[in-house]
Amino acid sequence: MTLAAEKLDQAVALLTELDVDCWLTFVRETTGARDPVLPLILGRDLTWQSALLVTRGGERVAIVGNFDADAIRALDTWPSVVPYVQSIRGELVETLKRLDPRLIAINYSENDVKADGLSLGMYRVLCGYLRDTPFAERLVSAERLIGALRGRKTDSEVGLIRAAVACAESIFEALPSLARVGMSEAEIARLMRELAADSRAAPAWNAEQCPIVNSGPQSMVGHGVPSEDIRVEPGHILHVDFGVQLDGYCSDLQRCWYVPRPNESGPPAEVKRAFETVVEAIRSAAKALKPGAVCWEVDAAARGVITAAGFREYLHATGHHVGQAAHDGGGVIGPRWERYGETPNQVVESGNVFTLELGVDNVAGCGYVGLEEMVLVTASGCEFLSSAQTKLGLLGR
Amino acid sequence: MTLAAEKLDQAVALLTELDVDCWLTFVRETTGARDPVLPLILGRDLTWQSALLVTRGGERVAIVGNFDADAIRALDTWPSVVPYVQSIRGELVETLKRLDPRLIAINYSENDVKADGLSLGMYRVLCGYLRDTPFAERLVSAERLIGALRGRKTDSEVGLIRAAVACAESIFEALPSLARVGMSEAEIARLMRELAADSRAAPAWNAEQCPIVNSGPQSMVGHGVPSEDIRVEPGHILHVDFGVQLDGYCSDLQRCWYVPRPNESGPPAEVKRAFETVVEAIRSAAKALKPGAVCWEVDAAARGVITAAGFREYLHATGHHVGQAAHDGGGVIGPRWERYGETPNQVVESGNVFTLELGVDNVAGCGYVGLEEMVLVTASGCEFLSSAQTKLGLLGR
Repeated sequence: MTLAAEKLDQAVALLTELDVDCWLTFVRETTGARDPVLPLILGRDLTWQSALLVTRGGERVAIVGNFDADAIRALDTWPSVVPYVQSIRGELVETLKRLDPRLIAINYSENDVKADGLSLGMYRVLCGYLRDTPFAERLVSAERLIGALRGRKTDSEVGLIRAAVACAESIFEALPSLARVGMSEAEIARLMRELAADSRAAPAWNAEQCPIVNSGPQSMVGHGVPSEDIRVEPGHILHVDFGVQLDGYCSDLQRCWYVPRPNESGPPAEVKRAFETVVEAIRSAAKALKPGAVCWEVDAAARGVITAAGFREYLHATGHHVGQAAHDGGGVIGPRWERYGETPNQVVESGNVFTLELGVDNVAGCGYVGLEEMVLVTASGCEFLSSAQTKLGLLGR
Repeated sequence: MTLAAEKLDQAVALLTELDVDCWLTFVRETTGARDPVLPLILGRDLTWQSALLVTRGGERVAIVGNFDADAIRALDTWPSVVPYVQSIRGELVETLKRLDPRLIAINYSENDVKADGLSLGMYRVLCGYLRDTPFAERLVSAERLIGALRGRKTDSEVGLIRAAVACAESIFEALPSLARVGMSEAEIARLMRELAADSRAAPAWNAEQCPIVNSGPQSMVGHGVPSEDIRVEPGHILHVDFGVQLDGYCSDLQRCWYVPRPNESGPPAEVKRAFETVVEAIRSAAKALKPGAVCWEVDAAARGVITAAGFREYLHATGHHVGQAAHDGGGVIGPRWERYGETPNQVVESGNVFTLELGVDNVAGCGYVGLEEMVLVTASGCEFLSSAQTKLGLLGR
C-alpha cells in the first residue's frame, strides 16, 4: 500500500470521527505553489485548477485538467478521475450537487501553515464558481482534519522518521573527528551536507541554513547562515542544528560540544550548569508529554526549569511536529504568544512526533548551549526517537 | 548588484508607474509554503510571520521574527529590518501608521498563480491585525505590480535564461545519437536528467515529469509520466518536452523526431504536413507577438493555422512566461477559456520571455507532433531565444 493510499484511508476515518461530510482540496500549478497536504494524499503535482474531494462515505473524486488526468489515473488511489478542458466549474458544481454535503472542509487555516494551502486568489475563484449554489455558505476550515491526518503518524511514517533520525545521528557522531579548531562554521556546514549526500539524504530545510552552525559568542543564533569568517576556537561552544530528509521524511536535531582552552580539562562551571539545565528542561517536557496534555502546558514544564535556574527565557517554542517537513504544522509546544495563534492550545495525541528543543544563549562568553531531541507520543507518555545527548562532549583534542 | 537588489529597484519604479503607494508581502514558514515572489525580492526563507514592505518613495522595511533578523540584515537589500518576538502586530501597525499609504497592494491574485502567495489563512490573520485600523479597507491585489515585475526581465535575467536554453538545447542535440530503437520512454527521460546533472542543471519542473517523453500513439500526451513499458519503435514520432533550471532560471522546449520503418526513407506525408503546419503556426504567433499585442490575439494567430489546415485544435494555451519558473505566471498566450481567468487579456510588454508551443495529436497512427520554442519580446517584435526546429529529424538510423 502506498503512503498516499494509507493516509487517504486514515482521512476517511477522520471524516467520521470529526463529523465532516466532505473534504475539498482546491489547488493549481502545484509545482510552484505547493499545497503542503498534497504529498500526503496525492504525491504528484497538478497543473490546471484541480479539486480533490474525499467523502465520509469513502468516495474519492479528482477533478483535474485534461492533461493531468492520465497521470492521476495511473496512481490507483483516486478511483474517480474527472477531466475538464475549458473550466472546472461545471464538473465541480455537478459533483457537489450529487454529494450534497452539509459542510465542506477546505484547505485553509489561520493557525496551521501546513493546513493552509489554499491561496486567497484561489479561494476567491472558488467562491465565484459556487456563487448561486448553496455550497458557498457551507465552506469551513479543514484545519482539524488536516492537523490530525498529518499529526497521527502511521507505523510506516514512524519507521521513515526513525531512519531519518538515525541518518542525522550518524553524521553528528562523525563530526567530532572531522571538525577541527580553525574551521569556519561554513566549512563544517558543507562537510555535514556532503555526509548527508553520501547517505542519499537531503537537508531537512533550505540547504543554505541546514545545518545551522554556531561557534562561540559572535555567531548568529536562530535561523542564521553559517559564517565563512567565524572559526572554531578554544573557549567556544560549537552548536549545530541539523536534520535530513530521507525517503520523504525528516529529522531535526541539535547537538553541542565544548572546545577547551589549553589550560582547561573541561567546560567552565557555568557552561556545565547551563548544559545540565537544558538537559533537565527537555526531560521535564518529555515527562509532561502524553496524550491529552495541552501543548502550552508541556512548553511551560520546560520553560520553568530554565527560568527557575536563573537563565534567560528562550524566545521560541519548545517543540514542533516533525514529519514530511521539519516543521510539520499542527499544534506547537509553545507559549501562548499571538504569533503562535491557537497552536499552543492543541491537545497532544498518540502517534504525534515532536521535537523538544531549547537552549541558553551567551553562556560565560562561550556561546550558545542548545539541544533538540525527537520524541514519539505513545499511549501513555512518550518515547525518545533520538539518543538524547546528556553529556557535553569536548572537541579538538 | 544581486538579482534581488536589481528587482527591488525595478519594483520601486513600478510603484510609481502603477500609482501604488505601498507593496506588502505577508508570509510565514516559507520553506514549506513558498510565496513565488520571494525568490525575486529576497532570495531567502522566512520562518515566523513576516512582512516585507516597499514604498513608492523607495523605503524597504522587513518586519521579521527575532531569529530571522540577522540573516535578513546580512543581505544588504533591506535597509530597515525590524525584529519582533511575541507578535508582529505592533510593529506592522506602527509601520503602516508611519507610512500611511492610500492603498496597500498585497500578494494575492485570482488570475496569476505567481502573484498569489498569500494564503487564505494568512489573509485572515492580516485582517485580524488591521481590525480597528484604517488599513484593512485599503488592501488591494498586487497582481499588476508582481506581473510586471516578474514579466519584464532585466538584462541579467535574460542572460540567465539564454544559458538555460543553451543547456537544454545541448542535451536535445545529444539525444539522436543516444536514444535507440527499443529504449523505453523512462530510459530516455533518465538519460536526459543525467545529462542535465552533468551540466549542474536541475529539471525545470518536477523531475518525475521532466522530461515528458512520448513515443508513438499509446503515450500519455500532456503532463504525463514517461512509461517504463512504451518503447521507441519504427513508425513512432518521438516527442520530448524538457527544460532545465540553471542558476535559478529556466528553459522549456519541445522537440520531435520520426523513427522510420525499414521501408521508409522519411516520415509519412501526413506526419510531414502536420510538422510543417506546427512550424507555420509557431511562426504565425511569433509574427503577432510584440509590445501592445493582447495575449489571446497571439494565441488565435497560431490556433487558426492549425484549424485552417484541418487539424484538431490543441486543448491548451499557445504560450506562457518563462523565468525563475518554467510556468512563470503573468499573462497567458491562450484562448479566453474560464480556466485561464483574465490572463489571456493581458498586454504583451518588451522584456517578456514566452514559450510558443503547440502540436497535433494522433497523426497517421504515429503519435504526437509538437514543438515548443522560447522568444524574447523586443521593442518592435520578438527574438527567438531557441534555435527553432524547422526540420523533422530522423531517429534510429
